[in-house]
Amino acid sequence: MTSNDLSDSAIFPKGMEIPEIFSEYFSGKVWLSMLVDRDNEFNCPIGNVTFEPGCRNNWHKHPGGQILLITGGRGYYREEGKPARELKAGDVVEIPKNVKHWHGAAADSWFVHLSVETNSQLGSVEWLEPVSDEEYNKLK
Amino acid sequence: MTSNDLSDSAIFPKGMEIPEIFSEYFSGKVWLSMLVDRDNEFNCPIGNVTFEPGCRNNWHKHPGGQILLITGGRGYYREEGKPARELKAGDVVEIPKNVKHWHGAAADSWFVHLSVETNSQLGSVEWLEPVSDEEYNKLK
Repeated sequence: MTSNDLSDSAIFPKGMEIPEIFSEYFSGKVWLSMLVDRDNEFNCPIGNVTFEPGCRNNWHKHPGGQILLITGGRGYYREEGKPARELKAGDVVEIPKNVKHWHGAAADSWFVHLSVETNSQLGSVEWLEPVSDEEYNKLK
Repeated sequence: MTSNDLSDSAIFPKGMEIPEIFSEYFSGKVWLSMLVDRDNEFNCPIGNVTFEPGCRNNWHKHPGGQILLITGGRGYYREEGKPARELKAGDVVEIPKNVKHWHGAAADSWFVHLSVETNSQLGSVEWLEPVSDEEYNKLK
């Protein structure tokens, strides 16, 4: 599957590859299109996020929580202390406030989700350490 | 296009036809699948809403605002005092707090959107009068 094929299947705009200043928090290439901005009355920024195969974000926490709505491809979500959950289009993930977690693509698939940051007035994401290759490579 | 065709294209579950208690606020058949519930820490209930052709909701307001993410079909959004906006898959609508509006399908098309109710701790939807046939039938 090519990146263009996936964008077509995933409905919302793919956007630009994320700037280098944020790319230290991802293990590979990521595209982001902000559908609803931060710092407005909604307190609910929404982004369409596209991961290339094998790409995942670092462990991180959201002070106000986060919801993922999966629109294409295959990927994973993992909360600290729990097994990884496999994700495909139509799946929904509820990530409670301040819970340490990561998400990203499977090794052999592109992955697209909407990221809904809830209660964003409570603060911004806190980025932590990368997911090790040892941990990631155990996932099938 | 059949309803099943549209559900397939729209990614998230179609859910059940809405109960009669709510159907007085819609001009036709509507299906709802709640993806994220009310009354939890997220303050951000998310529903997947499917309108049959010609169906729209009554005028209404949300105390905390609402965001629509269109995933399939063709429809309309209208704010009081402004022209109707035509909507298709990939479009996003930001509805400010307490702004009177309606949304629904085009006369000849099914219509599917995610409804994201923002700041839901500020209160529930306030339902108002139906959209008149005279107003609706002016839309093409």
